[in-house]
Amino acid sequence: MNLIVQKYGGTSVGSVERIQAIAKRIVEAKIKYDHVVVVVSAMGKTTDALVKMAKDIQGTPDPREYDALVSTGENVSASLVSMAIQALGHKAISLNGSQAGVFTENIYSKAKITKVDTTRMVKELEDGKVLIVTGFQGINDISDITTIGRGGSDTSAVVLAAALGAQECEIFTDVDGVYTTDPRLVEKAAKLEEISYDEMLELASLGARVLHPRSVECAKENNIVLHVRSSFKSDEGTRVKEDCKMEATKTVTGVTINEAQSQVSIRDVSDTPGVASKLFGELANNNVNVDMIVQSAERDQVNSITFTIASDDLSEAKTVTEKVAAELACKGITFDDDVAKVSIVGVGMISRPGVAAKMFNTLGDNGININLISTSEIKVSCVIKRDKARLALELLHTAFGLDQ
Amino acid sequence: MNLIVQKYGGTSVGSVERIQAIAKRIVEAKIKYDHVVVVVSAMGKTTDALVKMAKDIQGTPDPREYDALVSTGENVSASLVSMAIQALGHKAISLNGSQAGVFTENIYSKAKITKVDTTRMVKELEDGKVLIVTGFQGINDISDITTIGRGGSDTSAVVLAAALGAQECEIFTDVDGVYTTDPRLVEKAAKLEEISYDEMLELASLGARVLHPRSVECAKENNIVLHVRSSFKSDEGTRVKEDCKMEATKTVTGVTINEAQSQVSIRDVSDTPGVASKLFGELANNNVNVDMIVQSAERDQVNSITFTIASDDLSEAKTVTEKVAAELACKGITFDDDVAKVSIVGVGMISRPGVAAKMFNTLGDNGININLISTSEIKVSCVIKRDKARLALELLHTAFGLDQ
Repeated sequence: MNLIVQKYGGTSVGSVERIQAIAKRIVEAKIKYDHVVVVVSAMGKTTDALVKMAKDIQGTPDPREYDALVSTGENVSASLVSMAIQALGHKAISLNGSQAGVFTENIYSKAKITKVDTTRMVKELEDGKVLIVTGFQGINDISDITTIGRGGSDTSAVVLAAALGAQECEIFTDVDGVYTTDPRLVEKAAKLEEISYDEMLELASLGARVLHPRSVECAKENNIVLHVRSSFKSDEGTRVKEDCKMEATKTVTGVTINEAQSQVSIRDVSDTPGVASKLFGELANNNVNVDMIVQSAERDQVNSITFTIASDDLSEAKTVTEKVAAELACKGITFDDDVAKVSIVGVGMISRPGVAAKMFNTLGDNGININLISTSEIKVSCVIKRDKARLALELLHTAFGLDQ
Repeated sequence: MNLIVQKYGGTSVGSVERIQAIAKRIVEAKIKYDHVVVVVSAMGKTTDALVKMAKDIQGTPDPREYDALVSTGENVSASLVSMAIQALGHKAISLNGSQAGVFTENIYSKAKITKVDTTRMVKELEDGKVLIVTGFQGINDISDITTIGRGGSDTSAVVLAAALGAQECEIFTDVDGVYTTDPRLVEKAAKLEEISYDEMLELASLGARVLHPRSVECAKENNIVLHVRSSFKSDEGTRVKEDCKMEATKTVTGVTINEAQSQVSIRDVSDTPGVASKLFGELANNNVNVDMIVQSAERDQVNSITFTIASDDLSEAKTVTEKVAAELACKGITFDDDVAKVSIVGVGMISRPGVAAKMFNTLGDNGININLISTSEIKVSCVIKRDKARLALELLHTAFGLDQ
């Protein structure tokens, strides 16, 4: 079956006019590929409006009812997109999670998709129809509606591509691809033709809000090519795939910054064993997500712990840290709400030593102090002063040969 | 099972505050009756907004997609009402048409309910939950969503009451019951304690927009008492039921007017057989709904035909009538856009002669000419000049002893 899966996000279906515009693109795909399965998100800010009502009524909404409620946004856009395709003279049918056979775990709001029964989808495709499937939702084993977490429509699209044997899954969005860095911050940012799954995962986790990380993992597992492209322009976008030409030529594929970071340090934890487990356990219990953690033995065997968090969590983190420090008699707590994280990502760095050193040199030569360093096989992150972050981004983009 | 079914319309669930208010009433019912099944409509103008988008996209929306689209409004309000009940510390669960086991014919937008599989509802009721069921929707035999026509939530409520063996079905609305006439027009209008199904059917068809006629028929068939009451006040409303005390004491239960009527007459149809069948056939083909029809032999064997229609249809009716009259060489066509229909309704008139005469006398004594008369067993309707309609309403209300 010559089949393509396309996913359109909330902005792409945000109005009657936008829906009519994407219907034209879908019809073009239908003519080119024979079979098209479209996954849609809710229109624009619909879901946010539903969530607000739910929270006004029940501070912490019942998860089952919450899922039944927010999933309606996708039902609306799926029906409207189907109508728009029919209005262009082509056959189309909307399918909700239940009708599309998308089964999930028996939990709510963040269920994982466990099985796709493609019987009805295959029947409707063979009948020549374009399928418009609601993203983000499925059903559990008692036919209750479940959702797979916000941003999950990307994952829905990849799962359907895998279940139906599509080679490629097009993710239409309001940017025209994946860039070497944020083009709003660095003028010389270049659009990537290709990027590997692993690099994309690092970039996605680092805040490049192009693709949901789960969808990238799922695409990697099933070897589905993701094609990230603009819903407003017809240009090719960026293909996320296993083997990339890019790897051979460049060590670093992208540079990112996250400016909403805060740093917490406890300088003297020398006399108190188990500080780390106690501290990070308490932070987790209070839903504070810790990013980087560095524990080091300084001069005179005085241990220190430093970690970073999202700035939004600083106030909660302060309370928890001060409480734990008081209990365990730790000294020298400092909070720094003035930091940012700058990272370089690239599978090429696996085989090339000296990449991290080049990053540190580039920053050091330009008078940018590094507070913390964290590395993975394909990523190096440095925490620096926030007011140097944009400069660091440009310097690294140039240093690693990414300028357009 | 001690069970009550309650139905709340669009105004009653029109905002977060209204939803919180009805949740309190539902909880009161739960305490009183043990088991409560609530049927809800979509919030306020939600459905209208969805319909507008659909029509902007596809002039005549595909019926299957239309049903999938508009049914989402009820899903939203059902989830929110369930949350509001839970917020008050009671167990509740929303069920859509599919989950509630509401099966319909395999047609869209005006499907009839064919079967209710109560398995899940009974299980959830036995589990102590209040059920919030989406009105207006069901599923067909291929699990596609169907709707049962606008205003159909009343019917959904009655069908569920019948399926679950409830004795009474409360219809909460923005009026506090059924009145002897429109209280906005006649100050002395009195709220009825009880009214029979047949009388309510006549009143519903005559434009008292309290209950959908289908729901009354369905209640009559299943002998379910309908209790029409205000969602804003706790007073008892009007019970629609088979045996009414009212019958014994009053001949006329209600008086109604419809001011948006037009009248069409063809005076001379003497030489042309088959005029009526040709004329009303063509009107039906053009979707003109004809209300009253009077054919009479006048002096000199000249036949005349007069009929009434909704004023909105006058322009279409003119075109059709003139075309048919020209084809059949009929003469003397007149159109009157200046009429109204006033009706008295009451099962009491079956056994009491002279009711119609009393109506004619009341109008005649006050200088109100009657253009047309139409009667059923429990109703007499007269077409009169529109500017006399409100006066006629007050006179008849007084004459038949309905003044408060």
